Amino acid sequence: MKQVKAFVEGEEIIGFYLLKSVGIKQTNGAAPKDYLDLILADPSGEISAKFWDATHTDKETFFAPMLVKVKGLVHSYRDKLQFKISQIRPASPDDGHHITDYIRSAPVAPNDLVYAITTAAASIQDEDLRWIVNECIQKVGDKLHHYPAAKGMHHNFYAGLAYHVVRMLELAEFIVVQRPFLNRDLLIAGIILHDIAKTEELTAELGIVSEYSFTGKLIGHISLAVNWITEAALRRGMDLTSEKIVMLQHLILSHHNLGEWGSPVQPQLPEALALHLIDQLDAKMQAAEDALDTMADPGGWTPPLRALENKPLYRRKEL
Amino acid sequence: MKQVKAFVEGEEIIGFYLLKSVGIKQTNGAAPKDYLDLILADPSGEISAKFWDATHTDKETFFAPMLVKVKGLVHSYRDKLQFKISQIRPASPDDGHHITDYIRSAPVAPNDLVYAITTAAASIQDEDLRWIVNECIQKVGDKLHHYPAAKGMHHNFYAGLAYHVVRMLELAEFIVVQRPFLNRDLLIAGIILHDIAKTEELTAELGIVSEYSFTGKLIGHISLAVNWITEAALRRGMDLTSEKIVMLQHLILSHHNLGEWGSPVQPQLPEALALHLIDQLDAKMQAAEDALDTMADPGGWTPPLRALENKPLYRRKEL
Amino acid sequence: MKQVKAFVEGEEIIGFYLLKSVGIKQTNGAAPKDYLDLILADPSGEISAKFWDATHTDKETFFAPMLVKVKGLVHSYRDKLQFKISQIRPASPDDGHHITDYIRSAPVAPNDLVYAITTAAASIQDEDLRWIVNECIQKVGDKLHHYPAAKGMHHNFYAGLAYHVVRMLELAEFIVVQRPFLNRDLLIAGIILHDIAKTEELTAELGIVSEYSFTGKLIGHISLAVNWITEAALRRGMDLTSEKIVMLQHLILSHHNLGEWGSPVQPQLPEALALHLIDQLDAKMQAAEDALDTMADPGGWTPPLRALENKPLYRRKEL
Amino acid sequence: MKQVKAFVEGEEIIGFYLLKSVGIKQTNGAAPKDYLDLILADPSGEISAKFWDATHTDKETFFAPMLVKVKGLVHSYRDKLQFKISQIRPASPDDGHHITDYIRSAPVAPNDLVYAITTAAASIQDEDLRWIVNECIQKVGDKLHHYPAAKGMHHNFYAGLAYHVVRMLELAEFIVVQRPFLNRDLLIAGIILHDIAKTEELTAELGIVSEYSFTGKLIGHISLAVNWITEAALRRGMDLTSEKIVMLQHLILSHHNLGEWGSPVQPQLPEALALHLIDQLDAKMQAAEDALDTMADPGGWTPPLRALENKPLYRRKEL
Amino acid sequence: MKQVKAFVEGEEIIGFYLLKSVGIKQTNGAAPKDYLDLILADPSGEISAKFWDATHTDKETFFAPMLVKVKGLVHSYRDKLQFKISQIRPASPDDGHHITDYIRSAPVAPNDLVYAITTAAASIQDEDLRWIVNECIQKVGDKLHHYPAAKGMHHNFYAGLAYHVVRMLELAEFIVVQRPFLNRDLLIAGIILHDIAKTEELTAELGIVSEYSFTGKLIGHISLAVNWITEAALRRGMDLTSEKIVMLQHLILSHHNLGEWGSPVQPQLPEALALHLIDQLDAKMQAAEDALDTMADPGGWTPPLRALENKPLYRRKEL
Amino acid sequence: MKQVKAFVEGEEIIGFYLLKSVGIKQTNGAAPKDYLDLILADPSGEISAKFWDATHTDKETFFAPMLVKVKGLVHSYRDKLQFKISQIRPASPDDGHHITDYIRSAPVAPNDLVYAITTAAASIQDEDLRWIVNECIQKVGDKLHHYPAAKGMHHNFYAGLAYHVVRMLELAEFIVVQRPFLNRDLLIAGIILHDIAKTEELTAELGIVSEYSFTGKLIGHISLAVNWITEAALRRGMDLTSEKIVMLQHLILSHHNLGEWGSPVQPQLPEALALHLIDQLDAKMQAAEDALDTMADPGGWTPPLRALENKPLYRRKEL
Repeated sequence: MKQVKAFVEGEEIIGFYLLKSVGIKQTNGAAPKDYLDLILADPSGEISAKFWDATHTDKETFFAPMLVKVKGLVHSYRDKLQFKISQIRPASPDDGHHITDYIRSAPVAPNDLVYAITTAAASIQDEDLRWIVNECIQKVGDKLHHYPAAKGMHHNFYAGLAYHVVRMLELAEFIVVQRPFLNRDLLIAGIILHDIAKTEELTAELGIVSEYSFTGKLIGHISLAVNWITEAALRRGMDLTSEKIVMLQHLILSHHNLGEWGSPVQPQLPEALALHLIDQLDAKMQAAEDALDTMADPGGWTPPLRALENKPLYRRKEL
Repeated sequence: MKQVKAFVEGEEIIGFYLLKSVGIKQTNGAAPKDYLDLILADPSGEISAKFWDATHTDKETFFAPMLVKVKGLVHSYRDKLQFKISQIRPASPDDGHHITDYIRSAPVAPNDLVYAITTAAASIQDEDLRWIVNECIQKVGDKLHHYPAAKGMHHNFYAGLAYHVVRMLELAEFIVVQRPFLNRDLLIAGIILHDIAKTEELTAELGIVSEYSFTGKLIGHISLAVNWITEAALRRGMDLTSEKIVMLQHLILSHHNLGEWGSPVQPQLPEALALHLIDQLDAKMQAAEDALDTMADPGGWTPPLRALENKPLYRRKEL
Repeated sequence: MKQVKAFVEGEEIIGFYLLKSVGIKQTNGAAPKDYLDLILADPSGEISAKFWDATHTDKETFFAPMLVKVKGLVHSYRDKLQFKISQIRPASPDDGHHITDYIRSAPVAPNDLVYAITTAAASIQDEDLRWIVNECIQKVGDKLHHYPAAKGMHHNFYAGLAYHVVRMLELAEFIVVQRPFLNRDLLIAGIILHDIAKTEELTAELGIVSEYSFTGKLIGHISLAVNWITEAALRRGMDLTSEKIVMLQHLILSHHNLGEWGSPVQPQLPEALALHLIDQLDAKMQAAEDALDTMADPGGWTPPLRALENKPLYRRKEL
Repeated sequence: MKQVKAFVEGEEIIGFYLLKSVGIKQTNGAAPKDYLDLILADPSGEISAKFWDATHTDKETFFAPMLVKVKGLVHSYRDKLQFKISQIRPASPDDGHHITDYIRSAPVAPNDLVYAITTAAASIQDEDLRWIVNECIQKVGDKLHHYPAAKGMHHNFYAGLAYHVVRMLELAEFIVVQRPFLNRDLLIAGIILHDIAKTEELTAELGIVSEYSFTGKLIGHISLAVNWITEAALRRGMDLTSEKIVMLQHLILSHHNLGEWGSPVQPQLPEALALHLIDQLDAKMQAAEDALDTMADPGGWTPPLRALENKPLYRRKEL
Repeated sequence: MKQVKAFVEGEEIIGFYLLKSVGIKQTNGAAPKDYLDLILADPSGEISAKFWDATHTDKETFFAPMLVKVKGLVHSYRDKLQFKISQIRPASPDDGHHITDYIRSAPVAPNDLVYAITTAAASIQDEDLRWIVNECIQKVGDKLHHYPAAKGMHHNFYAGLAYHVVRMLELAEFIVVQRPFLNRDLLIAGIILHDIAKTEELTAELGIVSEYSFTGKLIGHISLAVNWITEAALRRGMDLTSEKIVMLQHLILSHHNLGEWGSPVQPQLPEALALHLIDQLDAKMQAAEDALDTMADPGGWTPPLRALENKPLYRRKEL
Repeated sequence: MKQVKAFVEGEEIIGFYLLKSVGIKQTNGAAPKDYLDLILADPSGEISAKFWDATHTDKETFFAPMLVKVKGLVHSYRDKLQFKISQIRPASPDDGHHITDYIRSAPVAPNDLVYAITTAAASIQDEDLRWIVNECIQKVGDKLHHYPAAKGMHHNFYAGLAYHVVRMLELAEFIVVQRPFLNRDLLIAGIILHDIAKTEELTAELGIVSEYSFTGKLIGHISLAVNWITEAALRRGMDLTSEKIVMLQHLILSHHNLGEWGSPVQPQLPEALALHLIDQLDAKMQAAEDALDTMADPGGWTPPLRALENKPLYRRKEL
């Protein structure tokens, strides 16, 4: 199958691709017609596609995410490649293709990521913290295997959340050796839980966020995670004002650092500061890596990146 | 007893006053001596006082807040009145004076304020919300009778918290009639709970805040109140993701309106918006009233007020 | 007549509606044609409409606001309903329809609103303030019956200005009882005059603002109202530096609270502070009520609202 | 008489100096004593001075600004020179010294400055604008000869206001030649009137501002000047909505450029933009010149300057 | 030839115009076609133009900037004039038209501007500064004759950079007389060099910037100019820490005044302050003049201008 | 010798300490006397000290930094310990004490730090980058062994600069393994050079910054380092516009990330982003570690920390 990234103007394509988003639009003019405005994708990238002759049935058949077989022509529109579909149908089991092969995923297998997280959780020495972290991991259940970490800013792919946590854990293990005054238990617990309630804040399938949930909009993942900790602590019979619980909740509450970024309190424990800085480093480096990988050729530029204060990045040819 | 506000330069004073703060300072020079730097107060106002000949025993005797008997002279220092103490001793029970007569209080009796709050709580139609509100009121216990609402910004006096809530409830009753689309239950519940965790955030005695608590610094009254609601909801066997709980927690979380003012989410329910606006109106008008009352004479100006973005207020002579 | 809000996809409609805005646009392509891009409205809501076969005469016939009779089909375009017009003509007197029945208006009759305002003006005890307020009311003349309070932020409907003032007066009457240290005369006068020069700042017809006037852009309604007070005071023979005039002008000048919101001075009288806070409360609650009413179904969300710092609102199903 | 700038540590001084500010302070300790904390000045600079043995009569004798004869010793205190006064008395007419010789003044005679301003006013071609400008000049009367332009930011000396205006007029004459599309009448009128109401906003004597006036605080010099223009226009029988008046008021209202700097509207005429930019250039260059002149030696630095966003300036040795 | 500014709706035009930008776009619909989306210009203004029937050859023939001969019809589209091209071809030498007659240029001949700049450079008394300035002028070479000063903010026309510098030099000559404490050499050198590296930061042809260069994006014209000064100083054998070099580099580094505007240090020499203020004045007045000239008719408004904090300007009818 | 951190109220102390700062102050009152206001320090902490009976000779003898022998009494002043000196003299060589044993230093020997840096420099594969880095290291010379990295924000101790660089190099080695798309050469070079010009920006002795240099104020360490790179590149005969030089200068210029933090351009290479994030992480964690170590006891709080946006940190008792 031809990779999306390798599409060339003028080429005819037949193949299976992920239908990542579907919109019904209408042509202009006295006799406007509905058409399907689609995004086709595979792990190498994505392309805008149009299906001009959409029937009423078509409009009720195609939803994202779904694996489809398409036939069509690559052409150029406003300096970008676009795909004009002549035929499209949903993939069937008989086709022998699995949608999971067509979505962007973390470069590490989800099972390995979850194993790394549960191993880190098991290594927490303090029994209370370990118990609470495990409760929260169990609450998330299978979502830890596949949820992305965000809608668009960073780690927006299959298992992006687990991958983000694992990379932060690696950094944390390095830093607690470099700076022994940090409490490892608290930092590890904070890293595992800091974004865990994104699984409640966001509605996602196959690593693709479709929207913020009702609860996500009104409460947000920071306060949701604090609620989960409260719930677990009460179930274990712990006092909510015990220093351990207060500190752990503080790490979650302060990990966005500033009020305007969503944190109601600012970091006042060194582990809270470390959590914030490790989170920043991993999220921004991943956003940079993904943008260079999918949006720029060597010697070229990405578009301005929202995750990097709207600055574009240059992709080195080679030094 | 002469009111503090009525002190005149040159006057000799003997009387009972509230010792509101105590500091040990030192004179300059080759033979520096310790002295007590005090604030004396009664409900009419406060005055800076010095006790120059403090003995070691004196330094261990006087703590704030405490009722003391003093003798001394009013004089003027850098355009302000100051009180030079020649004799000072703690009040004893035999003196027949009660410290509660000497502190600034809400202009309504605490019992009446708490009665108004519990009556409002009882009027909530929704049984779940009513139950949760009552749980939180009981958790606060006696502190609702005397806690101030803040350290210095507004309602910083005995029963200031309850007074703030009652005034907001009055405004809310007016506004839900003016705008019937608002849900009265939710708004009443939100008003009663919005600052209730200040009783855990602040350490206060006799309406005077001495400091922020450990929990107050690391979690803050907004997230603390959310924890209380979680705890109550779980005890009642409610689901944390039920719309009622999500909405009530949203009202608390968003009542400071902006991230930089401490709210991790912004108001997205009309009752949340109303709660924020009523809170602002009552807090700022009270800050204005108090400042004019205690810091300005007719035809004069208050100092710049932190609660009003550092603007001073003018006290009208009479229109 | 079918209400706009009740239109259903696929329905054919014949009826009278308000033509709220008219634009001449052009189809794309080698043979572009002009068409009319319209907004049809009634008090229940509004809908985008297209008249594809516009003749040269049509382009010179239709202007906003105007009552029209239309025939056409409701269809769906990009997830929103749209109206495709097959026939359109201006309403004629013989049709027996009055445009005023088709525009969004304050929920109280304009006469009643103006009566409430003039009654409040008459209740001002201070003769000078009363005289000045009445002068300004007379200067506005009939516009007070129908002007909106803004172009789009809040109270953007027929008699929206008067309605905003009346609601604020109600709040003020409540608050001057709650806080007797406020001067009622000054606050009432300030409320009546605070937005009165919007009648000069904005060009509006039937409650619909078409644009800012030349004077409105260069001077703004705040300084315009101050000019009116100056003019009235001079006509009455008053000194511009009299405390009354200075205070009244201060209320107007400071009612947006901050420089970046257009106030050259910040509130330094308690009545100025009260005016600002009452204005905020009424404007934001009205913006919320209107948005929920016209832009969201129960259980749904409004779009992000400019009047509420770009936050959307959720419309409760029922608690 | 020895210039203040030339005082040297250890020197005994007898002479006449300007008493620029007087404060009554108190020594610390068990037997605190009142003393006079003074600033002595002449046009070359100023020095902090103490009169330790102030009697009750002294405290009622000395007020700023006043010419005094002092005897005392220059010594060094915290790296700065200070003057310890042993004798002090008010200058009497018999001493033959004039206070005006001891204050900092514009480097051009006030009469010449006022002549330059009235000449510029007379050169305005448009009769209405000329009439209004002249009315305002006459309203100010003698204050135009001596008022400073600000309390501390720039041109805070005798005739500083007139000097600022004259310098701006010079720049304007140059720029209207460079850019003939600018309307000279409007720009000249705007420059003469832009700060003219500082004479009402500030209370000043001998070029020294003691405070903001009541009217200055509540209205501000920008809106005051607009009131003056309104008053003059009405007296001349002009319509306040005539383009001329609107434009002139716009220039005044917008000359601080941004809302946060006090302008309720932003420049929307090229002359308004020019007025703002010329004002900035002259005010900042003067602040720089004064700071270098009085606060830094060659090769040294001024303290951080409030007028220059708290940056210090370096005084070149010589290039 | 008809001036672009004089085009009237309905008119047929044949003539030579500057092709200022070329884009290939596509019509909507089931059979989308490519068309050329062009901007035609002459010194009087510019107009959007469409060439609907573009062949493959056409798409490879037309690039900006280029002189073309066109035939077509002026019509109105969305309240603006648009040009529908029926025939288009590149101008050939035989046509006898020179592209330079069709581009917007500074109102002074480039040779005269460069002469003024080199004369000013030659008048610098200090030999080192003069040598460095001349080195930088020679490095720029011919670009000084034609480069614009910016992409869109101000002086975006042929020889705009040189014109900006010459106008600033005129202002500087006036101001060094008004304020003799300024060092003329430093200020003249700073003005000539402040934007000189725009010739490396921007890629421009015929006064039209097509993009920022790689070096321009990563280093920026401020640091580039500092590099040039370093290079010249080293070539002359000067120490980089000599006061002269430090001061000259400081002028360049600080001329945007604030960090958020791109200056890593803030002005701390009076000449640096003067450079910044003169730059502001000239850039903003030119942006205003150009906008009024090309975007507004008498009695009309420009669109909001990015160079003026998004405020529109009003073009006076006549006073 | 008793450690400063172990001083107890009431204790008499005789010993050698570092004189870290010296000020001459004056007692108040009619007969003011000069005294020495000192800070004594050793690696464990510092204490305010007063020498009340300073003679003229004393004032000319003591300068910071210097090793002194003192005798005196520890007492308490405003809740803090203070040291009242009865005798003080400079240490002499015969005392057998070395000042370097009394200053706060990096926890790794300077030679080892410099060795780590030069080893990292030698490991750069690209010959040009390696050559330039080595040139800059040699230019710094011995200062790399002892300079602090800042005046007060972070790493303000002996060899703080080298320690900061070495820690960042450790982090970088970890991250280039985690994220192989980063160019190691560029990142290592950027880390070594990013703060290297602090040695020219600051004047420091024994790890204590006394002030910013003239060049430091006018140019700043960011642009100074860029100048150094330019100088080295020219000496090697490289083109300043070669991609290597542009990229390396970009890393230095952008490492403060935002204009308001001093960076004239923002990171647009992934290595520039990594440099910024590693710098942040190391600087903030070090500031936290130092503050907890020297300013808080277990279970207590540091004061608000400027390096952490004025938030205090809590020092855990033990989890």
